[in-house]
This record gives sequence, structure tokens and C-alpha cells, in this order.
Amino acid sequence: MGDTEFIIEPGRQDVVMIRTFDAPREVVFQVVTDPELIPRWWGPHVLATRVDRMEVRPGGQWRYANIDSDGGEHFFRGVYHDIVAPERYVRTWQFEGTPEDVALETVTLEAVDGGTRYVAQSVHRSVEARDAIIRADGPRGGRESMDRLAELLASHPNP
Amino acid sequence: MGDTEFIIEPGRQDVVMIRTFDAPREVVFQVVTDPELIPRWWGPHVLATRVDRMEVRPGGQWRYANIDSDGGEHFFRGVYHDIVAPERYVRTWQFEGTPEDVALETVTLEAVDGGTRYVAQSVHRSVEARDAIIRADGPRGGRESMDRLAELLASHPNP
Repeated sequence: MGDTEFIIEPGRQDVVMIRTFDAPREVVFQVVTDPELIPRWWGPHVLATRVDRMEVRPGGQWRYANIDSDGGEHFFRGVYHDIVAPERYVRTWQFEGTPEDVALETVTLEAVDGGTRYVAQSVHRSVEARDAIIRADGPRGGRESMDRLAELLASHPNP
Repeated sequence: MGDTEFIIEPGRQDVVMIRTFDAPREVVFQVVTDPELIPRWWGPHVLATRVDRMEVRPGGQWRYANIDSDGGEHFFRGVYHDIVAPERYVRTWQFEGTPEDVALETVTLEAVDGGTRYVAQSVHRSVEARDAIIRADGPRGGRESMDRLAELLASHPNP
């Protein structure tokens, strides 16, 4: 368990988020790729999430709405590329409000002593596009997602 | 016209390739998004190119084969994201031999005095993945593609 770590170096185009979960990586991979479970962990605490589409296969599309307290829906979307269960998936993501800022996310799951080290790297088009996400409090959303995922995994039956 | 310029800075994850063409950007955009014309300019001089798939729309897939002198086919593929004619398109690309190394390509066309400034940026997962493309002579393929595109545009009827 423990905290979520971020690696955000000046002048680079990527953000790396790392968290260790107390669950086998097969379980972590299954949970994070299950459309039914996304609303239970993806996004900040204060927003609900609705899965509009989630086709976990190379070339498959995904689209989630973050729903604010007024019922407004704010969409994120992208396409799955490489998928190697239970080790890795690569997908793109973009906020529909800024469609030119596509980012590339690689999630890698490493088996560590009794658990799983989850490493999510997002690469942006530019340092500026990356820094805009930081200013928009992206890491807080990531950290809250990781906390919610840890809680979900703690309640999830291991196979 | 003129030469192809590359911006490849140490420690960064991207490669930027810039070329100015003596054609309006509407024509350049139309040519670079036309599957029929891809074999006439995409790739190094010594390899033929075959378009297996090219769906120029958000979420659409593309897949090209580079064909070597023995007839062996080496595939590149990806997905189109944002497309704003005649200004920009964003797509992913990967060599099928190294599926984990997905890159994000943004092509921007700027109208300049009497011509078009073509800027192609590829962002890679890591500095190492970018440097591997450099070592594999990726910029030479890009430079040759730009020369071939300049020749094609010179023979292409302007609307």
C-alpha cells in the first residue's frame, strides 16, 4: 500500500505516477480493464464517472464522462494500442475540450513482493501541454483514483 | 522548397521534422491524407510502400507496409485522432516489430508566403525509445519522404 508517487521533471514531456497495491497483478490488470468497475475508481472523489465506451483491444476506443454536481458531462476519450495482460497496456487519451492535446499513456504492472507496482506514464505533445495538465490539478485526480483503486482492490475477491 | 530540418534535443522524447513546400496547404493536406498517393512519397527511396488500411477520421486505423528488395513486408500502423483540414492531424504510429513503442505524431501545416510549412512532431515513450529510432536511421527515411513529397507536389495540379 502506501502513497502515490509522481515523477514530474522540469522540461520533460511526461508525467509518471507510481503506486504499489496489495493485490496480485492479474487481479489489478483485470480490475483496471473492466468497464463495469471504472466508475468505482477512475477520477476524482467529487466527480461521478460514466463509461460510454471501452473496447479493450488494439484499435478499440474508450470514452468516459466525468459528471459534475450540476450533471454536466466532461468527456475523456482515446484508443487502446498494445495490450499484454497482465503486464501492460498502452492507450491514448485526450480531453474532448482540447482535442489537439492527445497524450499517450502506458500502464505497466510489475509483480513485487506480495503485491503489484502500478506505473502509469503519460507522454504529452509538449512540455507546455504537460504543464497545463499539472496546473489543471491532474495529479490530484490521479492520486484520488489510486486511493479509490486501493480501496476497491481491498474489497475485491482474489482468485 | 529547400532542405528538411530536424530538431532533436538531448534528453527530450520527441523528434520534430520541418520542411517548406512550394504548394498551398490545402493541396499539401489533401496529398498527405490520400491513400492512393502514399506509395508515391511515404518511406525511404529504396523501399516500396503498400497501403493496407488508411481511414482518415478520428478513431480510424492506418497500416502501411514497407516492402524490401526480397519482397518482405514490414508493417507500420496506428490510429488517427484529431483531424482538422487543412491545418493539422494527430495520429499514433508504431512499428509492428516493437509494439510497445507507440509514438504520437502531430502534423501541422502552416500557410507561409507562397507555400506551406510542414511540421511533423513525433513524441515517444522515452528518450531511449526516441534515440532507438534515431539510431535506426529514422530521420533519413523522413528526409527522403520529404524530398519525394516535394517532387510529387511539384507535379500535382493545384486547384
